[in-house]
Amino acid sequence: MRQAFHELILATRGRGLREFTAEVTRWIEENEFSDGLLTLHLRHTSASLLIQENADPDVRLDLDAFFARLVRDGDPLFRHTVEGDDDMSAHIRTALTAVNLSIPVQTGRLALGTWQGIYLWEHRQQPHSRHVRLHFIGE
Amino acid sequence: MRQAFHELILATRGRGLREFTAEVTRWIEENEFSDGLLTLHLRHTSASLLIQENADPDVRLDLDAFFARLVRDGDPLFRHTVEGDDDMSAHIRTALTAVNLSIPVQTGRLALGTWQGIYLWEHRQQPHSRHVRLHFIGE
Amino acid sequence: MRQAFHELILATRGRGLREFTAEVTRWIEENEFSDGLLTLHLRHTSASLLIQENADPDVRLDLDAFFARLVRDGDPLFRHTVEGDDDMSAHIRTALTAVNLSIPVQTGRLALGTWQGIYLWEHRQQPHSRHVRLHFIGE
Repeated sequence: MRQAFHELILATRGRGLREFTAEVTRWIEENEFSDGLLTLHLRHTSASLLIQENADPDVRLDLDAFFARLVRDGDPLFRHTVEGDDDMSAHIRTALTAVNLSIPVQTGRLALGTWQGIYLWEHRQQPHSRHVRLHFIGE
Repeated sequence: MRQAFHELILATRGRGLREFTAEVTRWIEENEFSDGLLTLHLRHTSASLLIQENADPDVRLDLDAFFARLVRDGDPLFRHTVEGDDDMSAHIRTALTAVNLSIPVQTGRLALGTWQGIYLWEHRQQPHSRHVRLHFIGE
Repeated sequence: MRQAFHELILATRGRGLREFTAEVTRWIEENEFSDGLLTLHLRHTSASLLIQENADPDVRLDLDAFFARLVRDGDPLFRHTVEGDDDMSAHIRTALTAVNLSIPVQTGRLALGTWQGIYLWEHRQQPHSRHVRLHFIGE
């Protein structure tokens, strides 16, 4: 039984979803992990990790459009306004989703379904550099 | 320290919650797992895994009714419409909940509270066959 | 490789967020865990675990205010009303967030970002005593 850690630094282009399944798969392959548990932890409070459909790109656009309507930037309800109109809405979008994921790895492959990809969801309007910590335990 | 994998295939009867705590518990007992971590990963993007109250069945009906009102089937906002009125809403319901869960196992028992059960939440209107990958690491 | 379990019992003062990062960190330090995976599981269905901003306290007030508007206590949609106006809304708030978290621990430190704290989010109006099961696997 062994463990390994890694950190991915992912650049975003502002609000929206960016797939990074390939970066995660590459780390598994480089280390020749066979069987175990992979955990991803995003070290931010205004972006999310999400497993979603990797086929039609309209799904990602619709996800983002729905969340933009559900959680309005600059909602007059918000007290926390000093970091801009999209900051408190970004925190709420993060609370409604997740910042960590745990995915089994079996015979060298993530247990993802055929249509599942791993996404970083940027909730701020401006581009950011986002850090995702990876942990593997297994063989 | 050891690991084990399993896959449950669960039939759904269309939109709604189905408990499968018993199937998970049976796998733990058959393998005589004592102490460790159980991870469940659902291999789909239009259904969820959820830990919820297992007492009053009205709770599940209310959860589903609330989500149906929050995320409308056939919302004119959606671009992704080719797979039917309930497909994009199903993806959003999945994003608002989760597809993986990690639950400690201690002295052979899941660390669930008295009122907690493990549910598969089908978000599509039609019945589906859903695959849940299980992973255990521990002793 | 070793494992350990612990249970934190946290008192809440009614609806709202309470940070308990310090209690988790203390358990890691007392046990001299170096590298591994920490899992937290909340044993209730009307409260959540959340990783959120630990700087401006207004963020927590806004989170709670947004959720109170999104999921109305006593919504006439609800069938499950026997436990009070805030019970079914609490179950929905739990479904929209999470009851378990998995965070890597590296060289004795949680992989949390600078602004991340671990919170218990009480969704009921009255104070409660909430049980969080902790599990560590690693070295």
